[in-house]
Amino acid sequence: MEVLVGGNKRARRSYGFDEVALVPGPLVVDPRDVDVSWSLGGRRFEVPILAAALDGAVNPRLAIEMSRLGGLAVLNLDGVQARYEDAEAVLERIAAAPQEGVVGFIQKLYEAPVKDELIARRVREIKKGGGIAAVSATPLTADRAARAAVEAGADLFFVQSTVGTVRFHSTHVTPFPVAEFCRNAPVPVVVGNTVGYQATLELMEAGAAGVLVGVGPGHICTSRKVLGIGVPQITATADCAAARDDYLARSGRYVPVITDGGLRNGGDIAKAIVAGADAVMLGSTIAAAAEAPAPGFSWGMATSSADLPRGTRIKVGVSGSLREILFGPAHRDDGTMNLVGALRLAMSSLGAANLKEMQQAEMVIAPSLPTEGKSLQRAQGVG
Amino acid sequence: MEVLVGGNKRARRSYGFDEVALVPGPLVVDPRDVDVSWSLGGRRFEVPILAAALDGAVNPRLAIEMSRLGGLAVLNLDGVQARYEDAEAVLERIAAAPQEGVVGFIQKLYEAPVKDELIARRVREIKKGGGIAAVSATPLTADRAARAAVEAGADLFFVQSTVGTVRFHSTHVTPFPVAEFCRNAPVPVVVGNTVGYQATLELMEAGAAGVLVGVGPGHICTSRKVLGIGVPQITATADCAAARDDYLARSGRYVPVITDGGLRNGGDIAKAIVAGADAVMLGSTIAAAAEAPAPGFSWGMATSSADLPRGTRIKVGVSGSLREILFGPAHRDDGTMNLVGALRLAMSSLGAANLKEMQQAEMVIAPSLPTEGKSLQRAQGVG
Amino acid sequence: MEVLVGGNKRARRSYGFDEVALVPGPLVVDPRDVDVSWSLGGRRFEVPILAAALDGAVNPRLAIEMSRLGGLAVLNLDGVQARYEDAEAVLERIAAAPQEGVVGFIQKLYEAPVKDELIARRVREIKKGGGIAAVSATPLTADRAARAAVEAGADLFFVQSTVGTVRFHSTHVTPFPVAEFCRNAPVPVVVGNTVGYQATLELMEAGAAGVLVGVGPGHICTSRKVLGIGVPQITATADCAAARDDYLARSGRYVPVITDGGLRNGGDIAKAIVAGADAVMLGSTIAAAAEAPAPGFSWGMATSSADLPRGTRIKVGVSGSLREILFGPAHRDDGTMNLVGALRLAMSSLGAANLKEMQQAEMVIAPSLPTEGKSLQRAQGVG
Amino acid sequence: MEVLVGGNKRARRSYGFDEVALVPGPLVVDPRDVDVSWSLGGRRFEVPILAAALDGAVNPRLAIEMSRLGGLAVLNLDGVQARYEDAEAVLERIAAAPQEGVVGFIQKLYEAPVKDELIARRVREIKKGGGIAAVSATPLTADRAARAAVEAGADLFFVQSTVGTVRFHSTHVTPFPVAEFCRNAPVPVVVGNTVGYQATLELMEAGAAGVLVGVGPGHICTSRKVLGIGVPQITATADCAAARDDYLARSGRYVPVITDGGLRNGGDIAKAIVAGADAVMLGSTIAAAAEAPAPGFSWGMATSSADLPRGTRIKVGVSGSLREILFGPAHRDDGTMNLVGALRLAMSSLGAANLKEMQQAEMVIAPSLPTEGKSLQRAQGVG
Repeated sequence: MEVLVGGNKRARRSYGFDEVALVPGPLVVDPRDVDVSWSLGGRRFEVPILAAALDGAVNPRLAIEMSRLGGLAVLNLDGVQARYEDAEAVLERIAAAPQEGVVGFIQKLYEAPVKDELIARRVREIKKGGGIAAVSATPLTADRAARAAVEAGADLFFVQSTVGTVRFHSTHVTPFPVAEFCRNAPVPVVVGNTVGYQATLELMEAGAAGVLVGVGPGHICTSRKVLGIGVPQITATADCAAARDDYLARSGRYVPVITDGGLRNGGDIAKAIVAGADAVMLGSTIAAAAEAPAPGFSWGMATSSADLPRGTRIKVGVSGSLREILFGPAHRDDGTMNLVGALRLAMSSLGAANLKEMQQAEMVIAPSLPTEGKSLQRAQGVG
Repeated sequence: MEVLVGGNKRARRSYGFDEVALVPGPLVVDPRDVDVSWSLGGRRFEVPILAAALDGAVNPRLAIEMSRLGGLAVLNLDGVQARYEDAEAVLERIAAAPQEGVVGFIQKLYEAPVKDELIARRVREIKKGGGIAAVSATPLTADRAARAAVEAGADLFFVQSTVGTVRFHSTHVTPFPVAEFCRNAPVPVVVGNTVGYQATLELMEAGAAGVLVGVGPGHICTSRKVLGIGVPQITATADCAAARDDYLARSGRYVPVITDGGLRNGGDIAKAIVAGADAVMLGSTIAAAAEAPAPGFSWGMATSSADLPRGTRIKVGVSGSLREILFGPAHRDDGTMNLVGALRLAMSSLGAANLKEMQQAEMVIAPSLPTEGKSLQRAQGVG
Repeated sequence: MEVLVGGNKRARRSYGFDEVALVPGPLVVDPRDVDVSWSLGGRRFEVPILAAALDGAVNPRLAIEMSRLGGLAVLNLDGVQARYEDAEAVLERIAAAPQEGVVGFIQKLYEAPVKDELIARRVREIKKGGGIAAVSATPLTADRAARAAVEAGADLFFVQSTVGTVRFHSTHVTPFPVAEFCRNAPVPVVVGNTVGYQATLELMEAGAAGVLVGVGPGHICTSRKVLGIGVPQITATADCAAARDDYLARSGRYVPVITDGGLRNGGDIAKAIVAGADAVMLGSTIAAAAEAPAPGFSWGMATSSADLPRGTRIKVGVSGSLREILFGPAHRDDGTMNLVGALRLAMSSLGAANLKEMQQAEMVIAPSLPTEGKSLQRAQGVG
Repeated sequence: MEVLVGGNKRARRSYGFDEVALVPGPLVVDPRDVDVSWSLGGRRFEVPILAAALDGAVNPRLAIEMSRLGGLAVLNLDGVQARYEDAEAVLERIAAAPQEGVVGFIQKLYEAPVKDELIARRVREIKKGGGIAAVSATPLTADRAARAAVEAGADLFFVQSTVGTVRFHSTHVTPFPVAEFCRNAPVPVVVGNTVGYQATLELMEAGAAGVLVGVGPGHICTSRKVLGIGVPQITATADCAAARDDYLARSGRYVPVITDGGLRNGGDIAKAIVAGADAVMLGSTIAAAAEAPAPGFSWGMATSSADLPRGTRIKVGVSGSLREILFGPAHRDDGTMNLVGALRLAMSSLGAANLKEMQQAEMVIAPSLPTEGKSLQRAQGVG
């Protein structure tokens, strides 16, 4: 599907969540027989949903509850939890700050140093509560953070940057050695974020236990405006899934692919799986849980960038408890609650008994024409 | 028209009502010579429009009037009519309830049990009024409902679920035996909803007297948001029509295909026929009739879902009498009135003397650009 | 460019004004050397713009002014001018009527009978003022209207219906004999509206002196909603132009093709010519002239349809004098004024010295993304 | 990618900024190792951004600052600076004029004659401040303006018209001799604006030191409405870049291609480079600098056109100092500040160490669906 955009420049047509829809086939499976479990780093999870390493989405309390419900939450080791003893008070202040000037307010708060002691304490809090301790750092801070976190009992380590690759060229610093880090880490290491077949393959060859897919996804995402970068998630997921399958054939090792970013509802989750994902990572949807660190608010990691902020604090509201968000009952019909129920029903309708079968289900290109929403509402609210 | 969305994942381009337009040819037929009749289950209808089995669209009174006008209305046997003796009072309460919390209100009302006695009574009311008694139930309730309804004189039975297929895999229950049910039912059985060539073919082979086409059609339909599922109706209809034609060639039996969901106006009806439909099923447009059960309001069957509601009560307004909606005169120019007149004029303009000829008419891909509406209005209102 | 929409149904991709843009080449022509003249029925016109036969666009006064300026205006013989002696008073009443109920108001006024005497009077008024008398009727009224109009001195006769074809099948009436009418008429006969190669070819073979192109063009046009019919004008124009060229090669007779409907500005006019048109017909843009019959208002011929109205009265405002609309100076930058100046400048930029060269100019598919308008305005207002 | 729009008319699919996105690959480059320098007319610039020759964007003061920061500003020799001794006072009056009637107000002010003395003075002011004096005139005024400017010390001369070509056909005037002008000018001559491979090639063969790309770019740009003309910039840039590469292969001379018009943010700049541009030219974004001539306002050169105005004065607001716009820190996350920082980060993410490598980077077709913005904001603000 490559087109010539002009001269000799070619570009591939790519697809996002809103451009595809799922297609039921001639077989329906009883929702009760649908298995949505998956594995990461040798550990089996009943729910293929991860809570993203955002300060507004995950604190130890939420991580514990997420584990209890069968999912996985990732704690940000470069954020408030690792910088402030009384992180909850700081989060409250961020939630309470007026919108005007909130970016500067956040930037200032993130100037406090990260403390190893706090990293260890957060990990211990999660473990003490019976949760799985998954933590995230950037390549810059990964070494030190990993040492503190693993010693305290961390179960999984995430290394995340805007574009996570094995190859980094620099005349200033020694690149972060992905393969060496994965080999030496005593716990499974998930790496991201990435897009593209080749980059994914290289991360898997380097020993990643999982790969996060998604760089500037979505349609009006700030990084697409600021940097021009942004690969729609359906295409990005399918590309990385192809790398996973080829790597599996070659190595015998199955490295799950986790779609991260741009997902808004149950429909997007189902589409990501059909595109090839093994699981999905959610940010704002989780930040809207009653158990979230700063209930009702969320902000991105790039908000605190001093010279090129790519995001701000946004109000996400509180939609319900984490259990309701994952398993219902849903109080709203916008697809942001009972996500697992929705995924099960979608899989049932598409005749998929498990995630591997769901990855083989059919999708169509079916552009949404959202501007017609108003006039359609009448007829389709009851469709 | 398959494209590669990424990796090895392929998807077919699909089309909805708003992406196509009909094309007049070199022949025009006198509208008075246009025949819009069709047959279902051995019965001939003068009007290829069915009223959907929604509580806000069909009660016995409307069914009688719809029959009288040449169409067919389907009564919902899982709704208020089969649960409450004084159904009209309950409908009035739903119509009068404040929007805030209306989903919960509806959910509660639908907890009352379905009574065989009421099923029988509704059928008898329709028959007594001279109407054709077409009734609808889900696979779960079909057996019991059919017994009561047929005994009371029902003429046609509809079995409807979100995705209606012959094949249902379950380790918990015995699947609904579509073929057996059709074979044993003393009246013709229409089955739905479905999309896809293979699923349609299997339903026809199982003995369905008609097939309802449409799973999550439309562009911002809740099931597309919640489940990711939704096949645009032009493509869905054309796929099912192809199955019908092949099944006819193979079996000699003609099983009409009824496009159900997402239709908003006369233009959509004409497009559905050109895509291959034999008839269409309307919900909200009928709920806007003065004779409708809860004039001015409509709500979907999935609204009452306890843990995953996919719809709410919407205000549709009252556009006119059922006769005006079907035959005019139209008081509005939005295509929601004089639907049969509009279909006739469209067929006339396309040189189609009957529905079979209309199915062969030409359509083009002609995306509507609704956001330009405002600036276009000036020039095109008089175009 | 045919695609499979589903099953065995195919559809061609079609294009409207907003989906294409014109491309300058390596040659620019001095605007003063650009010739925009064309011929219709043996008569040469300096301006390739016709005023449409709408009661809100053309009365004798405007027709005279339009002739004087080098264009051509067509008077509607089925409207107010042919039904009321004091047409101006009736037009004033329509302009003054409240929007609420205006359709019914118009329907009532159009119930007054057409009078031969008034047809003759309007033609004489135009001739007396030095104008070219072009008049329009429907196939139903053409015979009688033509007799009265020609006798009074009409120069050109237009036969217009929603879909104008040579072939009309009816068991009720004798079809309007296009070929016979053209042969017998003592003045050139322009026929429309049509779309499609075959239908255009047949009209030309029947003797039409010109063909009007456009059936339900535009994006949210009422006939697309009500009937599903509507062929985007770039495709429709190019199809008809191909028929014209083939007919010319075969017969030696050049029958101009006039794009009618959906044009809003100078850009659309230039695009229509590049698509193959010899001239364009404008309605609302002309109705916005200070000299228009009901300055500031316009309504379509289908507004008065008793049982299926497809349009209403719309406010178009007054943009300037007819001379300013055609030749400037423009007071606004929306492309609705100085239409001829804009066409000249476009032709100059594309290196086209005359309309035949302009028909060979280059266009690209360049979808407008109007919803981005707001955010673009800043950067592009000065682009 | 040519399609048949109808009949025998073909059109190429073209692409604008909003339809593409950039794709990171398996290599990331340290942003500190990214080189964004380029050369024009034998002069090396550290920043590939030019300020456009608009009266609202460039005066001598801004030109000096732009040079100091590593970029280049072009002064308009047909505008206020060359017509009024106290240009600043006139600019203040334009900025202060009420919106109502501002076009007429501007038209009147531009009736004052251009004075050679003032041209010389502005050039000297720039040189005196240590700036690079780049000036712009139209083909009509180029000869006289060049003489005055070069004598006063101008470093670079721009000849700009709506469509700049080598070939101009006229029976009224002697065409502007591009090749002769370039040959005789004692300073490098940049010519524009153009689109298309052939036109670009001819300008390069005529001796242009640089070519400005962009004729009516953008989606709702006035010249697309008024004239129908407008080639989306990604396609236009790639076409011209192909001509540059072929001309280089043939002649050994590298003539940079500068994308001018329609760019709104850092993302668009990065995309233009990937499409093949060597540099970009910005208007409104620069007019929003605190140092701009009429801080907060901008108006196009075609605003003053007496009979066919194609633009008006728009409010652009003041976003920060020129330094902040180019190098940050950014106070906003909309991509209009820290443009160089954004370009560096984009290049880093795409593994491009310099602009030539960036021209080879990957882009995908990824339509933005801006109307979904509202509903997406929640999830993607933190994506």
